[in-house]
Amino acid sequence: MLRILVGTAAGAQDHDDDVLVLETNLDDVAGEIIGYTRQRLLEAGALDVYAIPLQMKKDRPGVLLSVICRPADRERLEGILFTETQTFGIRRHTARRTTRDRAPCTVTTPWGEVAGKLGRHAGQTVFTPEFESCAQLARQFATPLRSVYRAAEDAFRAAGEKFVERAFAMALQPVNPAADHDHSHDHDHSHDHGHDHDHGHDHGHATTHDHGTDSTQGA
Amino acid sequence: MLRILVGTAAGAQDHDDDVLVLETNLDDVAGEIIGYTRQRLLEAGALDVYAIPLQMKKDRPGVLLSVICRPADRERLEGILFTETQTFGIRRHTARRTTRDRAPCTVTTPWGEVAGKLGRHAGQTVFTPEFESCAQLARQFATPLRSVYRAAEDAFRAAGEKFVERAFAMALQPVNPAADHDHSHDHDHSHDHGHDHDHGHDHGHATTHDHGTDSTQGA
Amino acid sequence: MLRILVGTAAGAQDHDDDVLVLETNLDDVAGEIIGYTRQRLLEAGALDVYAIPLQMKKDRPGVLLSVICRPADRERLEGILFTETQTFGIRRHTARRTTRDRAPCTVTTPWGEVAGKLGRHAGQTVFTPEFESCAQLARQFATPLRSVYRAAEDAFRAAGEKFVERAFAMALQPVNPAADHDHSHDHDHSHDHGHDHDHGHDHGHATTHDHGTDSTQGA
Amino acid sequence: MLRILVGTAAGAQDHDDDVLVLETNLDDVAGEIIGYTRQRLLEAGALDVYAIPLQMKKDRPGVLLSVICRPADRERLEGILFTETQTFGIRRHTARRTTRDRAPCTVTTPWGEVAGKLGRHAGQTVFTPEFESCAQLARQFATPLRSVYRAAEDAFRAAGEKFVERAFAMALQPVNPAADHDHSHDHDHSHDHGHDHDHGHDHGHATTHDHGTDSTQGA
Amino acid sequence: MLRILVGTAAGAQDHDDDVLVLETNLDDVAGEIIGYTRQRLLEAGALDVYAIPLQMKKDRPGVLLSVICRPADRERLEGILFTETQTFGIRRHTARRTTRDRAPCTVTTPWGEVAGKLGRHAGQTVFTPEFESCAQLARQFATPLRSVYRAAEDAFRAAGEKFVERAFAMALQPVNPAADHDHSHDHDHSHDHGHDHDHGHDHGHATTHDHGTDSTQGA
Amino acid sequence: MLRILVGTAAGAQDHDDDVLVLETNLDDVAGEIIGYTRQRLLEAGALDVYAIPLQMKKDRPGVLLSVICRPADRERLEGILFTETQTFGIRRHTARRTTRDRAPCTVTTPWGEVAGKLGRHAGQTVFTPEFESCAQLARQFATPLRSVYRAAEDAFRAAGEKFVERAFAMALQPVNPAADHDHSHDHDHSHDHGHDHDHGHDHGHATTHDHGTDSTQGA
Repeated sequence: MLRILVGTAAGAQDHDDDVLVLETNLDDVAGEIIGYTRQRLLEAGALDVYAIPLQMKKDRPGVLLSVICRPADRERLEGILFTETQTFGIRRHTARRTTRDRAPCTVTTPWGEVAGKLGRHAGQTVFTPEFESCAQLARQFATPLRSVYRAAEDAFRAAGEKFVERAFAMALQPVNPAADHDHSHDHDHSHDHGHDHDHGHDHGHATTHDHGTDSTQGA
Repeated sequence: MLRILVGTAAGAQDHDDDVLVLETNLDDVAGEIIGYTRQRLLEAGALDVYAIPLQMKKDRPGVLLSVICRPADRERLEGILFTETQTFGIRRHTARRTTRDRAPCTVTTPWGEVAGKLGRHAGQTVFTPEFESCAQLARQFATPLRSVYRAAEDAFRAAGEKFVERAFAMALQPVNPAADHDHSHDHDHSHDHGHDHDHGHDHGHATTHDHGTDSTQGA
Repeated sequence: MLRILVGTAAGAQDHDDDVLVLETNLDDVAGEIIGYTRQRLLEAGALDVYAIPLQMKKDRPGVLLSVICRPADRERLEGILFTETQTFGIRRHTARRTTRDRAPCTVTTPWGEVAGKLGRHAGQTVFTPEFESCAQLARQFATPLRSVYRAAEDAFRAAGEKFVERAFAMALQPVNPAADHDHSHDHDHSHDHGHDHDHGHDHGHATTHDHGTDSTQGA
Repeated sequence: MLRILVGTAAGAQDHDDDVLVLETNLDDVAGEIIGYTRQRLLEAGALDVYAIPLQMKKDRPGVLLSVICRPADRERLEGILFTETQTFGIRRHTARRTTRDRAPCTVTTPWGEVAGKLGRHAGQTVFTPEFESCAQLARQFATPLRSVYRAAEDAFRAAGEKFVERAFAMALQPVNPAADHDHSHDHDHSHDHGHDHDHGHDHGHATTHDHGTDSTQGA
Repeated sequence: MLRILVGTAAGAQDHDDDVLVLETNLDDVAGEIIGYTRQRLLEAGALDVYAIPLQMKKDRPGVLLSVICRPADRERLEGILFTETQTFGIRRHTARRTTRDRAPCTVTTPWGEVAGKLGRHAGQTVFTPEFESCAQLARQFATPLRSVYRAAEDAFRAAGEKFVERAFAMALQPVNPAADHDHSHDHDHSHDHGHDHDHGHDHGHATTHDHGTDSTQGA
Repeated sequence: MLRILVGTAAGAQDHDDDVLVLETNLDDVAGEIIGYTRQRLLEAGALDVYAIPLQMKKDRPGVLLSVICRPADRERLEGILFTETQTFGIRRHTARRTTRDRAPCTVTTPWGEVAGKLGRHAGQTVFTPEFESCAQLARQFATPLRSVYRAAEDAFRAAGEKFVERAFAMALQPVNPAADHDHSHDHDHSHDHGHDHDHGHDHGHATTHDHGTDSTQGA
């Protein structure tokens, strides 16, 4: 897994993986049941769940509910779909996925720390602040969410390339695979961001974060 | 009502009328109930009924069901909405409407007669073949629906301006208002197009049709 | 307000009220900002907030964000829209609304109590279980959400007409208007359903609930 | 095929099948042509047909028309798509499908018999009343469609597990494969539900139905 | 009009204006015609034009085409709608609009000048770079569009409050009303941004722009 | 490649090809960035790019951006998606495609020449006028776009079968493959339709066009 550290020599092909796309058409279930089903699917390890509005036969509005998941999770997630929506059938196909290498990291804004993730692909790095982390500060300080996002991105830009390398190096440390499976797929989890440890950062300083590689997002 | 025959001297303002737009947001009812509700509303005199996909709170897909109707029909149509969807509230606002003058007419295609309607606004006339009339011929002669539409439009173009005047003149005859109310609002009605009377038309000949002015469409 | 208790003699006209519909088109803001803005609007007293997918100019997907609110809340809610989305303009029109009379009530299912609301219009009563109340039991007992809804509806049907009258009578008691304003508009509130008082109900027994008339939903 | 009767020992894998998903993007054809094309596709054996709103280039609203079908029906259905929509190309991919075992059955409500289908997966059985069957009773007795659905589901719950076993046993009888192909794929067919045979049922009694296994729905 | 310069003492009410919302439902016209109609409407002075996907009767996908315009432009725009789409009717209602005060301004990024507009409401100012201006630089320098937007926003933040006041002061100069009408409604116009005059700005310097108040956007 | 000229003996199977479908879900990028990204993808050789409105988690409206492309173009197009949208992952699957044989051709209308393409499948030929070519005439002569389309289709019908054969024969001439790759995938290109050579056609006369086979459209 050290291949990532040697830079762009690692081809894009290396980062590909396979995901399953589960799909079911729903026209006999109310929207509030679908909302609940989506929550349960995400909690159970789905990488992403989204709804597309459909026009079905007999003038019925319907929904195409799609689940992106790891192949190993299919039966469990199909079970939830069958149980909650009473659907009669679930289609699936395999999709190959090109992803960015990811690493968690934390930056410091004038309002406090913001968790986020780094993504690297073909020598280009992006930083995406976590929604829950930003929203919490926006509410706490009664400032627009946009401003918090912006401050987090500014902090990342100020931190520089060295910071990025450190984040990825830490992300590639061996982690407990079992634990990784349990919590890494919920990158927007609102329950465990109590960053009460004091890093003593200045504004604009960014620091890597110590939870496992978030290799499981829906993309 | 003879004002229409004097041509473009009648201003656009003259043809305006008011319709009500009824709207209700639905996230606790299945698509197949909504499809049925739409059919019942159309049968009960709604000028148009359409569904817009919504994204409602708590990750719920929903539907904005909209009904265009005459003000006098509001209570009856709201009754259907309340009964079938169990909604807790229905919003409404008045919309002013600029419409084309309309007149029914029938044209003759190589496959047989096609009913349609003429629309006139600001000196410009359009002819719209009726869906059900075209679809019936398309099925009967196993020809693409597009070809039937096209042939009907060609027949109209061949018939010329004189034909248009005659159609509007006939449409403006006094009609039985009660009867008009009962059947004129379903311009796509599939139940009464048995044109078994032989007009002996050649292809390309268009003729006016004798049912009442279709002044009630949803626009 | 006792008019409701005398039955269907009260005309539908009596229950009408006016709401404002605020609308803004967004094509320069990310979806996650919109999701946050919706949450803030609902917290600040919006009766309903929903998003409609738009196709805007220059091949841009956009969103029509709509807010249903009481006229008195307009400036506060517009302020949130301006601040969070940076929109340049917000349209509004007044909609008149036909609503059901509403009363809160609680029913008892095999899994526990379920809060809900009664709605009455033109002599017809419906019972809608609260999503959060049902979802909590569904999770706790690992049963499909649909089954909990169904059980709650069965319990309501078993309770009968007398129960309905009692619920509406209680709902019409004088309540503290100030308090009513503060919490009644969040009918899906997840924070205050600790029904730890023991009513000793059998399954199928329904009971009225003591919080104020929920007269403020988005409809 | 008797494996289904031995219960949950049969793994979910056994019920998988492959379907084709045909897709074509349409931006040069009117909605009424698309509606007709959908009807023709369903009549010609498509398992499901649905439309997704697209935003295509040059500010054009478009539609992604999707057809779920058996591989053997592809050429016939593509022919309809080419002929009616004049599309220049149709994409397809294979989807694997997990389905419930299905069996037709009929239940008796206070308003009369309602046809439906049973679905069984992983030891869990659901009953779905047929739309057309419910809608016919709702219209005949001027009762909300929701109430008929509800009564049919209640009747199924009252009938019990023994009923389910009998329905599946009957569904697994050898049927005339040719006939099966011709009519089983239209589970919402409105043309052949003349249940004039008197079963003498009480309300709440459910009975199995004698037409072939509906193994072909769109899911 | 000098009221704007005295700060927040001017109430939000002052900036309200009325716009018309024109709406027509289309299910008999192809998407490419709709795309063209939108372009013509924008060229003819519509403040905004957008399409909402609809589900119309008979399984037809349709489009709700909406036009936001000044009341004085209604007849001209309705004429385009009637001519291009052949619609039979156009609904309209008036919407009141709360808008930000606007002023054009230009900022300087590392890649060159970017035109944009300032918006001020309730003491809060936002700067929105113009799409065409950013896109031109992004293409010219092969840099992501996001980076150009970001740089323009950074430049605005660096310029400070004094800059804002100057922009609004200049925007409030008397302008030729006739000329204003003709070109100000196209804030994304790609044809006249040849800023060949050298301002000699440093990066981060922002300057006001001398074309008329853009008071006409669709909001 | 001469097989096409021998008529319907060539099976549909012969015309199949494989395309890639790239998909990425976007909820953290504004609509105007997506519009730009679509333009860049089309310019870079994508066969088609379209956006589907999604409902993503946390009440976020999102977009499923889909790209149809040749397998050889994948890395280049993924690069644009990564760079412009900052997405963390792109899914892909292969779709097999049934297409019509295509040939460019030009017809003559009362307003001038209109470029278009012929499509042939299973013995059936369709002619699709090019949008840009029609739109240019519609603007130039202030005539509805619909009328220009109609006139172009009429001209094609008048030209007859012989014309079709000539068009396909010319389309099958050897072309410079490199050149073909560079410009043939933009069938709506607005830059090179200066048909200033005088063919001296009468109205209704159609003629084949000499640019390369447009075998690359998105279908």
